[in-house]
Amino acid sequence: MTSVQSIKRTSIAALESLSGQSDLRTLRLQGGCARTRLQLVLALRHAKRHALRTLLERTTLKQRMDETASYEVRELCETDLEHGFPELLAQLTQTGTLPLSFWRERYRLRQQLPGTYVTLVAVESATKRVTATATLLIEYKFTRSCGQAGHIEDVVVDAAHRRRNLGSRLVRELCARARDQFKCYKVTLDCVEENEAFYAKLGLERKGLQMVRYFPT
Amino acid sequence: MTSVQSIKRTSIAALESLSGQSDLRTLRLQGGCARTRLQLVLALRHAKRHALRTLLERTTLKQRMDETASYEVRELCETDLEHGFPELLAQLTQTGTLPLSFWRERYRLRQQLPGTYVTLVAVESATKRVTATATLLIEYKFTRSCGQAGHIEDVVVDAAHRRRNLGSRLVRELCARARDQFKCYKVTLDCVEENEAFYAKLGLERKGLQMVRYFPT
Repeated sequence: MTSVQSIKRTSIAALESLSGQSDLRTLRLQGGCARTRLQLVLALRHAKRHALRTLLERTTLKQRMDETASYEVRELCETDLEHGFPELLAQLTQTGTLPLSFWRERYRLRQQLPGTYVTLVAVESATKRVTATATLLIEYKFTRSCGQAGHIEDVVVDAAHRRRNLGSRLVRELCARARDQFKCYKVTLDCVEENEAFYAKLGLERKGLQMVRYFPT
Repeated sequence: MTSVQSIKRTSIAALESLSGQSDLRTLRLQGGCARTRLQLVLALRHAKRHALRTLLERTTLKQRMDETASYEVRELCETDLEHGFPELLAQLTQTGTLPLSFWRERYRLRQQLPGTYVTLVAVESATKRVTATATLLIEYKFTRSCGQAGHIEDVVVDAAHRRRNLGSRLVRELCARARDQFKCYKVTLDCVEENEAFYAKLGLERKGLQMVRYFPT
């Protein structure tokens, strides 16, 4: 891939094709008097800047297209349980050593509670492996005019697929579903302090404390 | 009710009956030589201390019995919706102005999601009014060996019934149910900093931050 560094070293010919400034060569060949040289310098500077911007835009667009093309974001389906979903969750917390049949049972139990769980996954198109996941749990409250609150839970991106905005995409999609599909008045989630900035970028604000009591198993 | 102040003024006769020291009167009547007077003083002191302790124990026990007898703690039932449940929740947050039929509908919707909601209420025995409530939402996870997490939500005690441990009783009961009935590996709740000490007394520890995004309605 053409890097910014390499663009800076691009020849005038390449700059011409990128910038559409077809008179660069003419200017270079003319280069006689001081005024013409100045014109040449200015034209080159302009062409370089234009070419740089064009290439940066193309690169960003390409990256975006790569991201979209390489991963499919959709709801968890039962076959995902055999394509990396348990291994992915194990990167987040303890998952135990239960056989697949228990995972299937849990999947089916959640299916029997309509309008309550949305588990999204980002599946790598090439391998069909689950590379990221996040869950929305809908709470049917009496407060807020018998409103719904969305709880975002178990957000994790596979270590080999990080820094591609997969986490953000999943959380954004869950927020949109909470608001549009389930008419939630809020979404809420608990996180460690280090993740506050990540969620703040997605429109969430620190509100209170999370308190927990673990039971011995 | 007999106060500690009044107990201190209790006559020897009353002290005798409370302390079971039936020789107090004899000692008082005898009161001749210094040694006997000393015996009398010591016996009185002992009797007072004993009586005080007995009365304090009786008072505490009475208070406990009062608390237990005056309020019934049980699961929310549909008729509670007409006995102060909406008004109670309005002391916690916005509840809107929906007619009773919407509250009934929400109650029934939650009934159709088995093993998911436990809303406890403390009902004043004399008036049958709902004076406190707290809800447990069960989340069926894939993590922790397809385990359950309990979310404690919407804890509120009527302003006129506070300082009687109703909130503690409800939260304790929900924790016990989460652990014993639903086999949760944890219970979690979100609260403002000022309530941390209250929940810490009930065995919950600060773990992280609560992040929230509200949607415009």
